[in-house]
Amino acid sequence: MTLDDLPTPCLVLDRPTLQANLDRMSRAVAAHGVALRPHMKTAKSIDVARLAMASRDAVIGGITVSTLAEAEYFAAHGITDILYAVGITPQKLAQVAALNANGAAIIVITDDADMASAIASHPTPPQTLIELDCGEARGGIAPDDPALLDLAARLGPALAGVLTHAGHSYAGRTPADMRTIAEAERQTALRAVTRLHAAGFATPIISVGSSPTALHAATLDGVSETRPGVYMFGDLFQAQIGTNARDGLALTVLTSVIGRRPAERRILVDAGALALSKDRSTQAVPQDYGFGLALDLNGQPSLGHSLVTRANQEHGVIDLDPGADLPALPIGTKLRIAPNHACLTAAAHDRYYVVDGSTTVQAIWPRVNGW
Amino acid sequence: MTLDDLPTPCLVLDRPTLQANLDRMSRAVAAHGVALRPHMKTAKSIDVARLAMASRDAVIGGITVSTLAEAEYFAAHGITDILYAVGITPQKLAQVAALNANGAAIIVITDDADMASAIASHPTPPQTLIELDCGEARGGIAPDDPALLDLAARLGPALAGVLTHAGHSYAGRTPADMRTIAEAERQTALRAVTRLHAAGFATPIISVGSSPTALHAATLDGVSETRPGVYMFGDLFQAQIGTNARDGLALTVLTSVIGRRPAERRILVDAGALALSKDRSTQAVPQDYGFGLALDLNGQPSLGHSLVTRANQEHGVIDLDPGADLPALPIGTKLRIAPNHACLTAAAHDRYYVVDGSTTVQAIWPRVNGW
Repeated sequence: MTLDDLPTPCLVLDRPTLQANLDRMSRAVAAHGVALRPHMKTAKSIDVARLAMASRDAVIGGITVSTLAEAEYFAAHGITDILYAVGITPQKLAQVAALNANGAAIIVITDDADMASAIASHPTPPQTLIELDCGEARGGIAPDDPALLDLAARLGPALAGVLTHAGHSYAGRTPADMRTIAEAERQTALRAVTRLHAAGFATPIISVGSSPTALHAATLDGVSETRPGVYMFGDLFQAQIGTNARDGLALTVLTSVIGRRPAERRILVDAGALALSKDRSTQAVPQDYGFGLALDLNGQPSLGHSLVTRANQEHGVIDLDPGADLPALPIGTKLRIAPNHACLTAAAHDRYYVVDGSTTVQAIWPRVNGW
Repeated sequence: MTLDDLPTPCLVLDRPTLQANLDRMSRAVAAHGVALRPHMKTAKSIDVARLAMASRDAVIGGITVSTLAEAEYFAAHGITDILYAVGITPQKLAQVAALNANGAAIIVITDDADMASAIASHPTPPQTLIELDCGEARGGIAPDDPALLDLAARLGPALAGVLTHAGHSYAGRTPADMRTIAEAERQTALRAVTRLHAAGFATPIISVGSSPTALHAATLDGVSETRPGVYMFGDLFQAQIGTNARDGLALTVLTSVIGRRPAERRILVDAGALALSKDRSTQAVPQDYGFGLALDLNGQPSLGHSLVTRANQEHGVIDLDPGADLPALPIGTKLRIAPNHACLTAAAHDRYYVVDGSTTVQAIWPRVNGW
């Protein structure tokens, strides 16, 4: 089976590129001497998780997930050490407890006093990290917040450490920016840990990380683990903020030409807003790729700068590069679209068609979507 | 089971609102004396399709779908008259032919000469509509395009009529705008039909429509059917262009509070970019709702003007209305989010939890996603 035999739209995952991305991150994290806890929110696939955990260099410290559906799925596939890195609620504790009773070791996070008490009073409280805000302004408390020690006291034996996430690293544009943000992330964790230790609390897990900060940190001294995710696949946004090389994009969307307007140098494809997502990350970086960059069936940029400029539900409009010498693109021609944001593009699809640099499909890997 | 028992995020569908929306469209279309061919791309549910087809007023002429996965699903549930309203490719003809061999009557569309020939030379060509462009500038040829008669000749006995879609009605803002665009849609179809009839071609199907033009058309004389879809659910965008009343939003996303920053009047919920989509339709209309409007568990606007202002993969940031007298919103509190664009929001979810105006879950209706 080759890509030309597949129904479109669908996801294509290039294994050599994935492996190169995994190896690069593994080397970077190993150099810091901390554990790598890969975030599976992008890939949501046991096959990708196994590759990410077969690290050549870094020590692997379990995985990170973004939904309890992922936790269920990866636990069912034998991965036990799982950090659920989205704030827990009282209602979700039962599902976590059930997984843990079945042999998993799901770690949860909170930044809320009432929630900390609810965890501690559960019959089988999960190990819990206190969420810290290192500048992202999303979840977490500041490391100097008076609430920190109260949270730790409320958690009692459930306290397993601290977690912070420099999501604002996506606003960085240079390796120097990333080093600065990575250092703020590290310092946030260490400041909280210092206060907790001084008050007699232990913090075996000191968890930081996003793909840019994991790659570019000058040092992760004092930290126990980092949690990058999108580095596995890369995308047009990450390629511009230094997480991946432009040829380090492992994920593309296979699509078919369904219309053509040669006079306008425009084609219509069957990858629209659902298959690509409406994410417009690259709007914020120097090169705006619209809803994605069109590549040929081999994943090569032979179409030049041909972009998906409009995305309706099942229709993508591609404005062809006016300067490129393009082949005929009759109805049914298959192309590949490099995405703005791999996490969101992948989420509409239930499987990966895996290739090894050619168009031959080597494997089909399922994904776990939903909640 | 009540909404408070459900895992979050998930979709809530209010059946009385859905029914009122269905009835309103059915009355509008019946008044025009044309058939209603509801577009199932928004709902993707046999349960919703059955309600939409149990029309009180309009004559139902089959359904419309946006993917072959929908065609397969609805055919398996006994609906035979299905219009696949996205340009067909040579490779997709086999799947259509297989469905038709099993008793379905899938109608396809094209605007391409080579594709028309491919259809005609298929052993069992599906009935085919010529796609016309009435101003949307996406698919279709102009009604005066010399290619029209060539397409008809190539299709031969497969020719079943014409189709056009005034997707640019979404740029309309008033009923008068919608009437103007609806009339352009109708005139486009009729102009092509006049030319085809003069050349001796029959056009049993003359298919037009979007939700706004189906509702607001002054006349649909000469047309055989209309294909609205999003009217079933409504959303914050459609409510502002006159398709639905503000209280006509049948679809919401149930979510849980997972963080709170009272000093900033900000909460964090577990409905983020995947559960809501990154669609920002309301950016283009007078009232921009960010990534959605927060409602209480009963679907009421007791939180005032509290918007999802930021949507990361699994995190939604809600800036609470500074003027509203709000209750405490502890971790785990359930809220509902009205979406910008119902089609895209629904697509990340695999089911609807159906309520009848209260929080009691009356039914669970599955969706068919993917391709």
